[in-house]
Amino acid sequence: MNTSSRARRKQRTASPLIRQRPWRNIVNSMPLFNLVPEEAVEAIENTSLNVLEEIGMKFLHPPAVETLKKYGAIPDKEDPQILRFDRNMILEKVALAPSQFTVTARNPQHSIVIGGRNIVFASVGSAPNASDLDNGRRPGNFQDYQNFIKLIQTFNSIHASSGYPVEPQDIHPKVRHLECLKAQALLSDKSTKCYVLGKPRTLDAFEITKRVHGISHEQFCSSPHIWTVVNTNSPLILDGPMAEGVMTMAEHGQATIITPFTLSGAMAPATIPGALVMQNAEFLATAALSQCTKPGAPIIYGSFTSNVDMRSGSPAFGTPENVKASQISGQLARRYNLPIRLSNATASNIPDAQAAQETVMSMWACLTANANVVNHSAGWLEGGLCASFEKFVIDAAMLDAVDAYLEPTLFNEDQLAMDAIREVKSGGHFFGAQHTMERYAHAFHEPFASDWSNFGAWTENGSQDSLTRANRIYHDIINNFEPPPLPEDRKEDLEEFVQRRTKEGGVPTDF
Amino acid sequence: MNTSSRARRKQRTASPLIRQRPWRNIVNSMPLFNLVPEEAVEAIENTSLNVLEEIGMKFLHPPAVETLKKYGAIPDKEDPQILRFDRNMILEKVALAPSQFTVTARNPQHSIVIGGRNIVFASVGSAPNASDLDNGRRPGNFQDYQNFIKLIQTFNSIHASSGYPVEPQDIHPKVRHLECLKAQALLSDKSTKCYVLGKPRTLDAFEITKRVHGISHEQFCSSPHIWTVVNTNSPLILDGPMAEGVMTMAEHGQATIITPFTLSGAMAPATIPGALVMQNAEFLATAALSQCTKPGAPIIYGSFTSNVDMRSGSPAFGTPENVKASQISGQLARRYNLPIRLSNATASNIPDAQAAQETVMSMWACLTANANVVNHSAGWLEGGLCASFEKFVIDAAMLDAVDAYLEPTLFNEDQLAMDAIREVKSGGHFFGAQHTMERYAHAFHEPFASDWSNFGAWTENGSQDSLTRANRIYHDIINNFEPPPLPEDRKEDLEEFVQRRTKEGGVPTDF
Repeated sequence: MNTSSRARRKQRTASPLIRQRPWRNIVNSMPLFNLVPEEAVEAIENTSLNVLEEIGMKFLHPPAVETLKKYGAIPDKEDPQILRFDRNMILEKVALAPSQFTVTARNPQHSIVIGGRNIVFASVGSAPNASDLDNGRRPGNFQDYQNFIKLIQTFNSIHASSGYPVEPQDIHPKVRHLECLKAQALLSDKSTKCYVLGKPRTLDAFEITKRVHGISHEQFCSSPHIWTVVNTNSPLILDGPMAEGVMTMAEHGQATIITPFTLSGAMAPATIPGALVMQNAEFLATAALSQCTKPGAPIIYGSFTSNVDMRSGSPAFGTPENVKASQISGQLARRYNLPIRLSNATASNIPDAQAAQETVMSMWACLTANANVVNHSAGWLEGGLCASFEKFVIDAAMLDAVDAYLEPTLFNEDQLAMDAIREVKSGGHFFGAQHTMERYAHAFHEPFASDWSNFGAWTENGSQDSLTRANRIYHDIINNFEPPPLPEDRKEDLEEFVQRRTKEGGVPTDF
Repeated sequence: MNTSSRARRKQRTASPLIRQRPWRNIVNSMPLFNLVPEEAVEAIENTSLNVLEEIGMKFLHPPAVETLKKYGAIPDKEDPQILRFDRNMILEKVALAPSQFTVTARNPQHSIVIGGRNIVFASVGSAPNASDLDNGRRPGNFQDYQNFIKLIQTFNSIHASSGYPVEPQDIHPKVRHLECLKAQALLSDKSTKCYVLGKPRTLDAFEITKRVHGISHEQFCSSPHIWTVVNTNSPLILDGPMAEGVMTMAEHGQATIITPFTLSGAMAPATIPGALVMQNAEFLATAALSQCTKPGAPIIYGSFTSNVDMRSGSPAFGTPENVKASQISGQLARRYNLPIRLSNATASNIPDAQAAQETVMSMWACLTANANVVNHSAGWLEGGLCASFEKFVIDAAMLDAVDAYLEPTLFNEDQLAMDAIREVKSGGHFFGAQHTMERYAHAFHEPFASDWSNFGAWTENGSQDSLTRANRIYHDIINNFEPPPLPEDRKEDLEEFVQRRTKEGGVPTDF
């Protein structure tokens, strides 16, 4: 790099590419919102406990069955993997889980508080495809993966990744977790999600996290340093890897979002109350497994309940049913005094008006449900099958605005502005008032991806739509990205571990 | 028309072009939402009453000044058009206004209930330009005007027009109101808004309404049959035509939305509490004028408070500040037990993701504020400077979904679906369950402008984005529109009146 390009680079760093709000653990300042009366929430709970007492849930993992039997679960005579539960045992176990905890990030300033009125926005996760305006839609690759991590690290409104934003399909699954977690550690200092797809992968993720944080095994296990999502295999099954994951995470004191996969009309009844009954039953039984494994293990009530398109069977999001399910799930989580995870989702194939409409509908569902974790909060398209770079930017800008909205309004004398009104009186203008001048630079939120210019100016500037502007911001960020510092010794530890595990062949796969 | 084309036409009518929810007076089933504590609302009210007592408001209409003086308003010594008010007089007068009333439409089934938990969606109004994908943006013309009226009439989620959706600039202002109201009467049986731009126009609107409804002057005046919006000329001025409009509407028992034009940072202080102080002061003084003119005249608390872009001075919508202002305005209106009018707005130049994002943000502000009237709820772009046909369709579809969301959820045994869960058990699928079959056709809301197909099917179908789909729906509606019936004698009365007034030269203009 020559001197002038270094100077340019320095200047760029000094003057940020995007004007965004500073990082903070966002607190939801809205009043709590109960869409339905408490009796409705009780009816869901009661029915879900009836499901667990009468019908039961199937656990495809012998140690999970053994653990739950120890606490009184009764195996079905014909299929001993199906367990039935006494309602009191379930409720007592779930009551052991903490209502709030912190997931420590590599950079402690990026640690996230989960629970209470805190709201964490986690990026899109697990999309098999990626897309941008430049090259269209393609199977996810490692370059796309890394570019998404750079966006996650850059936007203050994105608190964490939600797993791999896109699946790097060009890396073999036996070592994919090693390469992905390493890249994440090198490019971001925000908190990490791992996939509990078999114990070796989970333990590798723990090892990498310890090395990147520079902490001992005991320090790692003493509080959450990594988190995961466990999905049930609805209806009423927890499969082997997921059950093992719940237990491994609990044993190591790490955080687990337990999300039943209860799409109404497909894997759950075709009514929202019925789907929520199923969701609650599956959550409670899985949460009980976690708490039987280790009392007090940090868990999060996950809801992904939405409806399917009855004609095609494909899932829909941001629908009236989805909004209701999210809001009522918030009430259920409050009943258990647990944090809740929801999603910012859309079924649209491109980041158009439909995508934005469905996403903002989902987002308000999250806000009014008091969501503590919003997964897929930026970049998600096609019901999760594609991660879009432009949509990531558009969503991150929306979340930046939501952060501003959630900043409580003050009502002191200065804010009530009687003096300014006295100064301007009838027929004047506030542009030039002292009160306005004093707050000129920071009076209002300025969204970094919006264009508020008039039609003439907008046309002269090339008639850029949201996508075009987002594309430019995305490239600006990628082109100017500088990774956060990671101490050299930790970097070496990380490299050594990944090289060793790669030499050992990673984790066994059947292909 | 030959037989086969008639048959085709019949078929089209029988099978509706869009699958939408039936017309209803929508009731907001959400819990009431108070963003800020009651003390904050009191602080705004107190400061606004201080403004009226100490600074006063200017009325550019001598009869308004005389009326208010009769009830104790004190003219300023230097500028007798500026009136100061005792806070108790103001509050007593405002308390005379009804908390709920009905605006009768030509088709009584399309009458709208304003107040309480009712929510009315009124289309875009007063845009000088129109746009569609086919011909881009152009000054509004009478053809566009009529096409928008056809959309208003067709969508059940649009309860009323909000004035002229677009200004037909090809019709001279001296007769524009006559042609517009006539076209509206011929193409729509929903309720009508008039513009109070001088008494002759207002009285013409009354005359046309009486003829179209087929009612006497006394019947007309006995309850609201038409409504208007009156804007203050912020800060702290009510201009001549608007003041005359408030009085004329009150005298005739017709409904007036009183909306201060308090854009924070321009015509109002650069803080939301300060802008709301200004809004509340201007609303209260104008409402007092209405109630001094005729106690019990139907009025609506209007809020249009948003912020401007501090760099350009242009207004912004769907911003964090706009959402807060709307929600707090809802609390203010509840304090006075009055209906509230808000807006569904965006500053975007095209119906892209930004437009949808800002619109849905505004819309949730309306919902959580318990808005009774949402003006500009479909089709608005460019901060009101353009009415878009495609955005109209996209927004109407969103409002159709909002209607579905606001339908209360039942929690009976059938909805809780224990029997279905018992039937399917673990590992089954609900697609084929009896419970699903029974509700296959109507289980979930189906948005008429969204595409939920997967990427492959969507690509095969031409990769249509929201705009393209909306454009097709818009043309389908226009091409197949059939006006609602209007009795022949009323039609003749209407024609006779409009011809006569046109012959008389319409209303005087200075150009």
